[in-house]
Amino acid sequence: MLSRALDFSLYLITDRRALPSGRSLDDAVGAACAGGVGAVQLREKDLDTRALYALACRLREITAAHGVRLLINDRIDLALAVAADGVHLGGRSLPLAVARRLLGPDGLIGVSTHNPQEIHAAHQNGADFVTFGPVYATPSKAAFGPPQGLQALHAACAGASLPVFALGGITPERAGEVRAAGAQGLAAIRAILGAADPTCAARRFARE
Amino acid sequence: MLSRALDFSLYLITDRRALPSGRSLDDAVGAACAGGVGAVQLREKDLDTRALYALACRLREITAAHGVRLLINDRIDLALAVAADGVHLGGRSLPLAVARRLLGPDGLIGVSTHNPQEIHAAHQNGADFVTFGPVYATPSKAAFGPPQGLQALHAACAGASLPVFALGGITPERAGEVRAAGAQGLAAIRAILGAADPTCAARRFARE
Repeated sequence: MLSRALDFSLYLITDRRALPSGRSLDDAVGAACAGGVGAVQLREKDLDTRALYALACRLREITAAHGVRLLINDRIDLALAVAADGVHLGGRSLPLAVARRLLGPDGLIGVSTHNPQEIHAAHQNGADFVTFGPVYATPSKAAFGPPQGLQALHAACAGASLPVFALGGITPERAGEVRAAGAQGLAAIRAILGAADPTCAARRFARE
Repeated sequence: MLSRALDFSLYLITDRRALPSGRSLDDAVGAACAGGVGAVQLREKDLDTRALYALACRLREITAAHGVRLLINDRIDLALAVAADGVHLGGRSLPLAVARRLLGPDGLIGVSTHNPQEIHAAHQNGADFVTFGPVYATPSKAAFGPPQGLQALHAACAGASLPVFALGGITPERAGEVRAAGAQGLAAIRAILGAADPTCAARRFARE
């Protein structure tokens, strides 16, 4: 069961490179929010602070208009600057305890994990949820490691004391088996941002 | 005259690439602090958040042991995380007003400037001091623009309502003419970090 604070189950992670030619990230995120995405993680590691700030300001407006959560990857200063709902931490981000201190008790903190030990540590250190993956092979698999498969996802979810969002190659067609494996949420990049119609793509995750 | 908060006049900006082979940044900064550097700016743009945090923690200990200020380039989250004295903002950092809000009224904010208009704007928006440059040609001049010379430094300082630190090719030999042009402080990278003895190099700035 999702915690009270975690009122979403479809988590969109941004990647401008996944967009069809000619579509802005603002438009794609707005369309995805209209389709049922409950939280958006701004993750554009190649942008400098000023560009990230400008983008975060726009995504804060867009997500707020839809009642959708906004989390910022890695950058707690940017999360505070745009009054985001929280941050998402990777293995090279600030330690979780430091992030919690800077963000305060009410900020949402998601953590990227790749094994049950990392999930346990995230829970112990006060994370609100984790992503686990990559479940399937993805174009970005080089960055996330080899696919772990449904069995590893099942084992990870079975031992987890906080909500687990499956990540990596998650598509609407796979949503059923991923939920059956115990994932309480789904995280997607390309399946939504790369779709011809991000609203329809997001809606299909809820239906399947 | 320096403001009360600005109790330093020799400002060391870090760049690991300027170190002699085999010397750690920790050692060089410690030696520079022993020689009279009054503030250190951690500026290592290629490091990820976790590596910057580890380095910032160490430099906070080293500078605190010498009663030296520590400022973090660009990253207000890291400045807050290690209880640095402030931040240094470049043209691609968060807007000054946003940085001031996150850092609070007591945090030091330095701003990189390249013309009198930028100095004026920095003052209007609540900066505590600015760097101005590059005054002379430097190995890193490509990143900072062409050298501006002493005349431009003089004009910039004459019209400034806050302390100006000359930056770019500043050496102990040039300290006299730079101060005569109106600079209230000196900023150095290579002249200190690249020196065989950073303590002596820092001391020479005070003497010349």
